[in-house]
Amino acid sequence: MSSPVYLGVIGVGGVGTAFLSQLARLPNAPKLILLARSSQTLQSPTPAYSPAIPAAEWKTAVETPSLMKSGALSVDEIASYLSSAPGRSILVDNTSDPALASSYPIFLRKGISIVTPNKKGFSSDLSLWKDIFASAAEGKALVYHESTVGAGLPVISTLRDLVATGDEVTRIEGVFSGTLSFLFNTFAPVSGLSGAKWSEVVAKAKELGYTEPDPRDDLNGMDVARKLTILARIAGLEVQAPDSFPIESLIPKELESLPSTAEGTAQFMARLPEFDGQMAAIKEGAEKQGKVVRYVGSIDVGKKEVRVGLQYFDQDSAIAGLKGSDNIISFYTKRYTSPLIVQGAGAGGDVTAHGVSADLVKAVERLQ
Amino acid sequence: MSSPVYLGVIGVGGVGTAFLSQLARLPNAPKLILLARSSQTLQSPTPAYSPAIPAAEWKTAVETPSLMKSGALSVDEIASYLSSAPGRSILVDNTSDPALASSYPIFLRKGISIVTPNKKGFSSDLSLWKDIFASAAEGKALVYHESTVGAGLPVISTLRDLVATGDEVTRIEGVFSGTLSFLFNTFAPVSGLSGAKWSEVVAKAKELGYTEPDPRDDLNGMDVARKLTILARIAGLEVQAPDSFPIESLIPKELESLPSTAEGTAQFMARLPEFDGQMAAIKEGAEKQGKVVRYVGSIDVGKKEVRVGLQYFDQDSAIAGLKGSDNIISFYTKRYTSPLIVQGAGAGGDVTAHGVSADLVKAVERLQ
Repeated sequence: MSSPVYLGVIGVGGVGTAFLSQLARLPNAPKLILLARSSQTLQSPTPAYSPAIPAAEWKTAVETPSLMKSGALSVDEIASYLSSAPGRSILVDNTSDPALASSYPIFLRKGISIVTPNKKGFSSDLSLWKDIFASAAEGKALVYHESTVGAGLPVISTLRDLVATGDEVTRIEGVFSGTLSFLFNTFAPVSGLSGAKWSEVVAKAKELGYTEPDPRDDLNGMDVARKLTILARIAGLEVQAPDSFPIESLIPKELESLPSTAEGTAQFMARLPEFDGQMAAIKEGAEKQGKVVRYVGSIDVGKKEVRVGLQYFDQDSAIAGLKGSDNIISFYTKRYTSPLIVQGAGAGGDVTAHGVSADLVKAVERLQ
Repeated sequence: MSSPVYLGVIGVGGVGTAFLSQLARLPNAPKLILLARSSQTLQSPTPAYSPAIPAAEWKTAVETPSLMKSGALSVDEIASYLSSAPGRSILVDNTSDPALASSYPIFLRKGISIVTPNKKGFSSDLSLWKDIFASAAEGKALVYHESTVGAGLPVISTLRDLVATGDEVTRIEGVFSGTLSFLFNTFAPVSGLSGAKWSEVVAKAKELGYTEPDPRDDLNGMDVARKLTILARIAGLEVQAPDSFPIESLIPKELESLPSTAEGTAQFMARLPEFDGQMAAIKEGAEKQGKVVRYVGSIDVGKKEVRVGLQYFDQDSAIAGLKGSDNIISFYTKRYTSPLIVQGAGAGGDVTAHGVSADLVKAVERLQ
């Protein structure tokens, strides 16, 4: 129960940086022997795989003479390095790179466990999903990806526990995007007192950094669709791809052809006010029924239906009462007829890294 | 990663029965080799520890000639039997017996892991808490007790993840009793439309089986205090005992001396209407501030304060909006300034057993 575990980390963006600072303070942390960013790789020297890279000083570790430095390594080079370590090893992928995600099976078959917030591996073609878990079984390796849905909120673990213990999940519903949560909580609050126009709310959110640099990446619903794909698959549905079910895009049809360049973003923002009337009508339609409009994802397991889009909710419902940019996820099951609800911040470097760190602790506990 | 794991189970009450039916359908289930109820014990015969007891047919397994039958065994006998099994073993304690709970250290030091919904071991004297975790470390055994707070809701695991990854938990607050949740959601709903008197609500809840047979066991606040004790200790506070902080009892002072017999219960219920005016005044006091009254527990980690009792809440707060007999637990941390909230059924055989089964799966994953 206490053989050393070795760790490789790829990615030092917002989540990666927060993760490394959490790793530095983790008791019983695995030995960090590889740290890769786009163009630079740090490694502990073979064959001893020692000294480890100091997580607390990763920024200056490149100056440590005893560490190996190189440019970007290939997947095969990283997998071969990690699998030759004198103990079990874990790769933490803190990127959102689809290419790296599609190579998880290579790592897993070599016995390297994967811990990651990268949605791509679990929400792309069903064949990759199946390959990942078959490869993990083959290599007796572990896969943890809590932060792919709701950041560090206990969403994946809760769903997996329900499924593993034989509960029957009938429905999953929620607000899965911090950005869209903020937009609708601001645009259509329960109090009904917002006078702000839709385009103003989007512009403000962009200004505050609550949206992606190109807000269309939030408004197209694909991020939510990827999260739904992951949950639906865990619940037992064979979702072929993240676009194989209805996704209601909030990008007006007339603006769909704008290029995905910075200039296209600017044109999109400039023309968005033309569609304020449409959004106001939707909002008022809800109000007439005493409800509010929210952008949600839902999975009906029995009917095998996955949907992403706008929906009306009672003003005293948990979804309507959401604040700020919080996520909320409700699980309806045979055991939980009154839903099991998880709610809280679903985006941000620290809370996303929290999910990665918590997964890492669990993986280390099982491997050591 | 696949040595057999052996399982002993004590208790076949509501939770125990639900657990056994979940166990029977668990893939990769450990081998059930001991099943004990108050006056009867079933065991797989030594030295082979085979055949296993069929979890699905535990009620009739006593007629299986190949199994050993005896009366109640002592703690030492059970510990010695389990620790001699040809693999790692786990004891699931599905009782609420304080004596069994106080003997967890004996099992743990022998390397037997503990999985339990029994609050007693974790909420009694601080010395027992310390002994349990020191013994677990000594015996390299595991301790999982998710269902001691909020039944199967992911409360303990969420808090342990936050603490393990170095987050700073500043405050925990919530409704921790399904019974008291029901009583106050009914007595003082947000709509303000309940005309029911306090004593009527209590009587109705008793009739529906939502309270303990003696409702005073809910109204005295001790069950909530025990749960708070557990959470506070995980969050790092050295709470000496479950009564070493302020607990507001809902048993009127004048009725405190009634005997804890069935007759005492009857007298209590008969005299409770005398105090309806007091409870109505509290309810109206909240309403005058535009709030509702709820029975909550809270932990202020910085101030080292634990409190259990009545508190006023804004009508649009998550606690006020609770429905039925749901629990809600909010974690405020350095990372989660907008709280991480877990909500849902916090009582009942099936959901309590769910937490036990999920813990068992995790323990098996680490031991095999």
